[in-house]
Amino acid sequence: MLWGSRFIKKLNNDALNFSSSLSFDVRLYAQDISVSIAHANMLKKIGILTKQECDDIVAGLAEIKAEIETEQWYPDSNEFEDIHSAIEKRLFEKIGDTAGKLHSGRSRNDQVATGVRLWMKEKIKELRDQINSLQHALLNAAEKHTDTIMPGYTHLQRAQPISLAFHFLAYVEMLERSKSRLNFVFSETDKSPLGCGALAGSTLPLDREFAANELNFSSLTGNALDSVSDRDYIIDFLNACSIGMMNLSRLSEELIIWSTSEWNFITMSDEFSTGSSLMPQKKNPDIVELIRGKAGRVFGNYVGLISTVKGLPLSYNRDLQEDKEPLFDSFDTYNVSLKMMAGVISSITINNERFYNELDGDFSLSTDLAEWLVTKDVPFRKSHEIVGKVVKYAEENTKKLNELSLPELKNIYDVFDESALNFFSVKDALYRKQTIGSPNPDLVRDQIKFWKTQLL
Amino acid sequence: MLWGSRFIKKLNNDALNFSSSLSFDVRLYAQDISVSIAHANMLKKIGILTKQECDDIVAGLAEIKAEIETEQWYPDSNEFEDIHSAIEKRLFEKIGDTAGKLHSGRSRNDQVATGVRLWMKEKIKELRDQINSLQHALLNAAEKHTDTIMPGYTHLQRAQPISLAFHFLAYVEMLERSKSRLNFVFSETDKSPLGCGALAGSTLPLDREFAANELNFSSLTGNALDSVSDRDYIIDFLNACSIGMMNLSRLSEELIIWSTSEWNFITMSDEFSTGSSLMPQKKNPDIVELIRGKAGRVFGNYVGLISTVKGLPLSYNRDLQEDKEPLFDSFDTYNVSLKMMAGVISSITINNERFYNELDGDFSLSTDLAEWLVTKDVPFRKSHEIVGKVVKYAEENTKKLNELSLPELKNIYDVFDESALNFFSVKDALYRKQTIGSPNPDLVRDQIKFWKTQLL
Amino acid sequence: MLWGSRFIKKLNNDALNFSSSLSFDVRLYAQDISVSIAHANMLKKIGILTKQECDDIVAGLAEIKAEIETEQWYPDSNEFEDIHSAIEKRLFEKIGDTAGKLHSGRSRNDQVATGVRLWMKEKIKELRDQINSLQHALLNAAEKHTDTIMPGYTHLQRAQPISLAFHFLAYVEMLERSKSRLNFVFSETDKSPLGCGALAGSTLPLDREFAANELNFSSLTGNALDSVSDRDYIIDFLNACSIGMMNLSRLSEELIIWSTSEWNFITMSDEFSTGSSLMPQKKNPDIVELIRGKAGRVFGNYVGLISTVKGLPLSYNRDLQEDKEPLFDSFDTYNVSLKMMAGVISSITINNERFYNELDGDFSLSTDLAEWLVTKDVPFRKSHEIVGKVVKYAEENTKKLNELSLPELKNIYDVFDESALNFFSVKDALYRKQTIGSPNPDLVRDQIKFWKTQLL
Amino acid sequence: MLWGSRFIKKLNNDALNFSSSLSFDVRLYAQDISVSIAHANMLKKIGILTKQECDDIVAGLAEIKAEIETEQWYPDSNEFEDIHSAIEKRLFEKIGDTAGKLHSGRSRNDQVATGVRLWMKEKIKELRDQINSLQHALLNAAEKHTDTIMPGYTHLQRAQPISLAFHFLAYVEMLERSKSRLNFVFSETDKSPLGCGALAGSTLPLDREFAANELNFSSLTGNALDSVSDRDYIIDFLNACSIGMMNLSRLSEELIIWSTSEWNFITMSDEFSTGSSLMPQKKNPDIVELIRGKAGRVFGNYVGLISTVKGLPLSYNRDLQEDKEPLFDSFDTYNVSLKMMAGVISSITINNERFYNELDGDFSLSTDLAEWLVTKDVPFRKSHEIVGKVVKYAEENTKKLNELSLPELKNIYDVFDESALNFFSVKDALYRKQTIGSPNPDLVRDQIKFWKTQLL
Repeated sequence: MLWGSRFIKKLNNDALNFSSSLSFDVRLYAQDISVSIAHANMLKKIGILTKQECDDIVAGLAEIKAEIETEQWYPDSNEFEDIHSAIEKRLFEKIGDTAGKLHSGRSRNDQVATGVRLWMKEKIKELRDQINSLQHALLNAAEKHTDTIMPGYTHLQRAQPISLAFHFLAYVEMLERSKSRLNFVFSETDKSPLGCGALAGSTLPLDREFAANELNFSSLTGNALDSVSDRDYIIDFLNACSIGMMNLSRLSEELIIWSTSEWNFITMSDEFSTGSSLMPQKKNPDIVELIRGKAGRVFGNYVGLISTVKGLPLSYNRDLQEDKEPLFDSFDTYNVSLKMMAGVISSITINNERFYNELDGDFSLSTDLAEWLVTKDVPFRKSHEIVGKVVKYAEENTKKLNELSLPELKNIYDVFDESALNFFSVKDALYRKQTIGSPNPDLVRDQIKFWKTQLL
Repeated sequence: MLWGSRFIKKLNNDALNFSSSLSFDVRLYAQDISVSIAHANMLKKIGILTKQECDDIVAGLAEIKAEIETEQWYPDSNEFEDIHSAIEKRLFEKIGDTAGKLHSGRSRNDQVATGVRLWMKEKIKELRDQINSLQHALLNAAEKHTDTIMPGYTHLQRAQPISLAFHFLAYVEMLERSKSRLNFVFSETDKSPLGCGALAGSTLPLDREFAANELNFSSLTGNALDSVSDRDYIIDFLNACSIGMMNLSRLSEELIIWSTSEWNFITMSDEFSTGSSLMPQKKNPDIVELIRGKAGRVFGNYVGLISTVKGLPLSYNRDLQEDKEPLFDSFDTYNVSLKMMAGVISSITINNERFYNELDGDFSLSTDLAEWLVTKDVPFRKSHEIVGKVVKYAEENTKKLNELSLPELKNIYDVFDESALNFFSVKDALYRKQTIGSPNPDLVRDQIKFWKTQLL
Repeated sequence: MLWGSRFIKKLNNDALNFSSSLSFDVRLYAQDISVSIAHANMLKKIGILTKQECDDIVAGLAEIKAEIETEQWYPDSNEFEDIHSAIEKRLFEKIGDTAGKLHSGRSRNDQVATGVRLWMKEKIKELRDQINSLQHALLNAAEKHTDTIMPGYTHLQRAQPISLAFHFLAYVEMLERSKSRLNFVFSETDKSPLGCGALAGSTLPLDREFAANELNFSSLTGNALDSVSDRDYIIDFLNACSIGMMNLSRLSEELIIWSTSEWNFITMSDEFSTGSSLMPQKKNPDIVELIRGKAGRVFGNYVGLISTVKGLPLSYNRDLQEDKEPLFDSFDTYNVSLKMMAGVISSITINNERFYNELDGDFSLSTDLAEWLVTKDVPFRKSHEIVGKVVKYAEENTKKLNELSLPELKNIYDVFDESALNFFSVKDALYRKQTIGSPNPDLVRDQIKFWKTQLL
Repeated sequence: MLWGSRFIKKLNNDALNFSSSLSFDVRLYAQDISVSIAHANMLKKIGILTKQECDDIVAGLAEIKAEIETEQWYPDSNEFEDIHSAIEKRLFEKIGDTAGKLHSGRSRNDQVATGVRLWMKEKIKELRDQINSLQHALLNAAEKHTDTIMPGYTHLQRAQPISLAFHFLAYVEMLERSKSRLNFVFSETDKSPLGCGALAGSTLPLDREFAANELNFSSLTGNALDSVSDRDYIIDFLNACSIGMMNLSRLSEELIIWSTSEWNFITMSDEFSTGSSLMPQKKNPDIVELIRGKAGRVFGNYVGLISTVKGLPLSYNRDLQEDKEPLFDSFDTYNVSLKMMAGVISSITINNERFYNELDGDFSLSTDLAEWLVTKDVPFRKSHEIVGKVVKYAEENTKKLNELSLPELKNIYDVFDESALNFFSVKDALYRKQTIGSPNPDLVRDQIKFWKTQLL
């Protein structure tokens, strides 16, 4: 116990167990040791530690790190409140009373906050790499499918023809936004609170900038009271994970739908599918279902932490210990989901021809026809109405658009001429698109090239 | 793999790991075995298993249960999808091909749902017992404090004097509601889905009622499709845990406030307090802070599951596997929080005299004075206004109410007489209360007696 | 201002606007008036009001109610804190000082809580009626489709054939659970807090039971402190709305999917569809999309209120005013969604023949074949494996199951005989089901009859 | 109806009402008109509109804007789906068929998304201004209180003395982070989706960059499918509002606690307080209670939208209409809460002397004493233990630290000397702090100066 001498009774055993964070914050052991080494070096610089004392501390901490990594020493939840006190105790066992100098001018409040920020900075980098990998998987798939026609949907109703490459590029852009969001979180996280003490700094001449430098932080947090109370950067991280998972849930939903017998557009690899214990014929898209489902879990982590922090007075309250499990769980879930999704995308088989015939001459070309009328100076609202009649006529006569004759069209509206008939070919439809961001295969190919360069 | 023969490639290793629920659903091993034994007995009854086969299966399952409990066998997440397939595989190792007959007419969909319901029924009972214990702790504390005066607050401003016993009784009632809610959840959970198969029942003549009886379920679920898709009862359970934790968070907040130097009303036992690694004088109410904080976590579990289930088509989708971790975590958190709170309440020390002097003659008696005027036929709105003036006069003259003379009162409003002065004694204030549910110590003592009998 | 006399400065205008609840709690005017009438009658009974005073108050309140309902008088948010003080002020204008006697022994804390409970009791009844209507719509649709074959899905993959009637019955059962949940909430709500005052009851001899009786409450709340602090019953109501909307979101998702070109199983009525401002051919299932979307909103209401109440000390805090908007919005949303869904279900057109041919001889019959093997004493795990091989063979030879010859089957496993071939007819598949809760059309017809009687 | 011609039946009236967004999106009228003007100018540039047509459209739209602002024309929810179609219809009434040309190459999908982004950009600027005002209010209060001693708390237990100015600076920094977060959201929002059509761009040669320029967007969104499906920027905005409200809820909690009789540190102005309808003496901090409570509401908005978007396939689905109410409500709530809080802070009265005597010689100085020992080369862990004993000794002898004699101290640990006694003066305690971010009044004054310059 780090705080014992004024207490008469010991903490109740169940209460220790209830309150110990060791079972999960053991994950921060390496960051805690880095923070302690930086702190020791700083204490040496300002003359609180001699060179020898500092060397002993640093060597002791390095040994402890090795012991943990080789599983020679494993601290016990029934004995310690957290990984930080466990390591400090271990250091006493290794180097004796000098260990007692390490905590000078330091509280667990600033110590833990610094360690968590270090951990987050690493993990944000990992997530960015993982996002890059998924973007590459999508771009590789897109490259082969710039001319693979599929229906674009609104309201899950066929709207206009697009290509699979164009569809995948939508996700490449979403993912890029996820990186921007993580970049913002990184910049919020990249500030050192070390030296803020419990809430009010120190009477010792601690050199906060030196320590921050040792730990590769870009700058310092300001006000000490705020520094130890602040969990905003963690909630921003949980928001980034939540939106990230929300986006993956949308892609998952589409892959699930595309894999149905009814859609029959893609086939998942056996490697990312499972079967049924009862029904011998089943092949299920479990992996993407789990990704979709796990989005909810990450939203829950956000809600959990933000409602925990709501209404808390400054500075540290023990409630804030509840920040770590949602943080770790959200990272783990988002990270592995990104990885799984890259595997899924890389291994799906596309039924290239699935929609071509259905869409050739399909009603989903009718917007193009209405736009053709616009170029003949028909006001769009009128052309929309005219084409609505064309669709109704065709539907009633169970014809596709390309089965209509020019006389039939002229019967509905006299302005139609031969050139209108060209608009019923789905093959040409994509190439007729003129706007930036449209599924025109030439533009899509440029986009793929652009992203491939961008992501290098 | 239970579903292998039509697959060519094996499930990717990372994907197995990602999708395996073994690490957490191992907790359901006993329930899974009970379900299997009931199913086997039912298959024997309808002639699908011989007596010998059934005996072999039951004996094998009993052995497996013993192996798990004595840690002789422990299934591995890298090998199995879940505890159910692990146990089935183990049964093959023990009794050979007969094991293959156990899954007749059964899917993991109904098997797991049945096991979870069994587990929940046990845990709801545990929670009710835990709630009873906390109610007893509160009643025991209340018994000693029916005359311990304290301010009752609205808006955290002193409103009217009450007693600590009365305050604790508020929580006894809240907790009683928590039990009613759990009773509702119990009745929703106490229905057997076994025999519903994957979604559509069976062509085998399964006797669902027999199996339900064996497992002590009160009735059957109906429609098979709904039975395997339904997670409503789990969300109801998460709601019960959320409201339960919300209530505990309110008590925690109060205990934290009462423990401050400024309030100085209670002292937490050292057994449920911790100190600071930096500040030698600190004694912190960590346990109740954690309870307050963990309320957020349980809310998060609710959000996680309900948003996971939102928009899912029938019947089973793998997203639903995400039901178990929030279920287990909410139970664990609520259960241990109830236990901790009982320990906290049983060990606090009350500063009985803290508020007596401050409240004697305090402005918080002014409602009583206004009600006295009502009995003199002054309309309440007018008496409210008159007493408002009394308060303002006293405040401006920095007097307490019991320091005002009758002439001063009469100066404000002529109706005041000697008997009004009696209303400034806080001691009598509680005893003057006449309504059911009020802090009148005689009524409070009756209530304590009532609850003690009720909870036997 | 009801509380003015000790204040020097007036409430800031923006602050009044910020804190006034009149814009939304005006909705409680009728309940507030009922509560006041019951309170007046009770005050008469205990002698605080004369008969004449009581008559004047009751007549005045009746007039105010009429004024509001005929829009002759409409209170203003810039003038009043809430509907309760607006009505009280209006009563003064009508009957003079006698109005001032009404608030004897009453606080807005117990007054509002009583009014809200009355409102909720009415609305719960409305919701139950609305649920009944939707159940009837589903049963009417089901009646016509006990033999309309469709694929039952797990993981949105075809699993086993079921009927549309069976599918709709799943929702009838879900909806029945929603009513049970509302019944539980009703019983929690049906308790009168009137007479609890601000937090501590009264020195006046209020007859709480008399007032409760007047208002048709079944019983009283207990402890006064708890009574005015309690919002559990509202959160339980929000939970009921959330699960209810979650269930509707699942049905919505299915209707959306079934309406796609790819599924082509149902057609929504024009009355519940919309078009596109750009694409002339579009017909979109907007109504069910909105229902699906609004589920999220109702979840948000739950989260909003429970995290608002978290950590609040007893008794009333102004934060609790935030209970009403989520309550009203959740009721409105759930209520209208139920109504819209009944309209949608009543007006869809079913493509009866859509799946018949596809499912005849389809792999989704393979579980039945495996169960046939079980009756030939093949252990299910083995039969699952054998049928897995049959499926793989058929798939590789692009045959349906009913295109396989007996020799082909025997080649895979010798036990197959003529009778196995019967299992490939989808028509008979449903009738072969033997278990309670299965899609056997005879059982389904019984179920429909049962529900129709039940819901009378 | 903009989409009528292929429909036979009209939308059901209740369904129109259910689905109409006019009641809330009327708020976007000005943005919608700006978008239409920019679109018209662009259509003129590419030759789809003549100059005359464009002029007519622009003039018509300007008239409609004036009509709305002067309340001469108000569209009706029972007639229109949304404000966009209402304005288009009105334009027809004003300028005839030319109005029909405006929608060329445009869908409501891109039109609405553009309008919302314009609205958000304005509102983010307003929020930043409001945050600046609150920061100024805090800095003005801080300036007067750099030497107003108060306890700094951890776990709501007195930890170390700080100043009120230092405490307020913590919130200035939090608020600065809120602006950074809004800046990030602004950059995500500042991209024009106009020209993306329904999901796939256009066959017309729309000049997206020209239109974006007209509307003052910094850049274009990319992929059209993503552009109309994306709601990430709104969720990021809701996150910003949620964290912002969470921070205000913490300040609210503190102000509520500081206003209690027990703390007695501040007095709220009557302008931001209310009384009780029952208790004449009450003065309640309602405004900050409401701010604290409304944090929950804003969290609910976040949950509502993110769970609505979860699992939605691309591109537009009607569920997405549910984005606007949480967006508007979160802005309104956060904006007015910031404003109210600035009013509250500007008008509180501080009880400057409240804590001075209590803290002089108080145990909360013991960390400083322990740090003094560190400068005497006592390892901190040992000095922590020694000071723990000092505290225990003082407590047992009911002395404050400054009531201990040197011999008493030396009896506990021999190293203590005269200079240690200086550490018991609270007055000097703040000035002894040496670290960046500490409550040293000299540093705090520098910080206030820095922020005042920064916020100019």
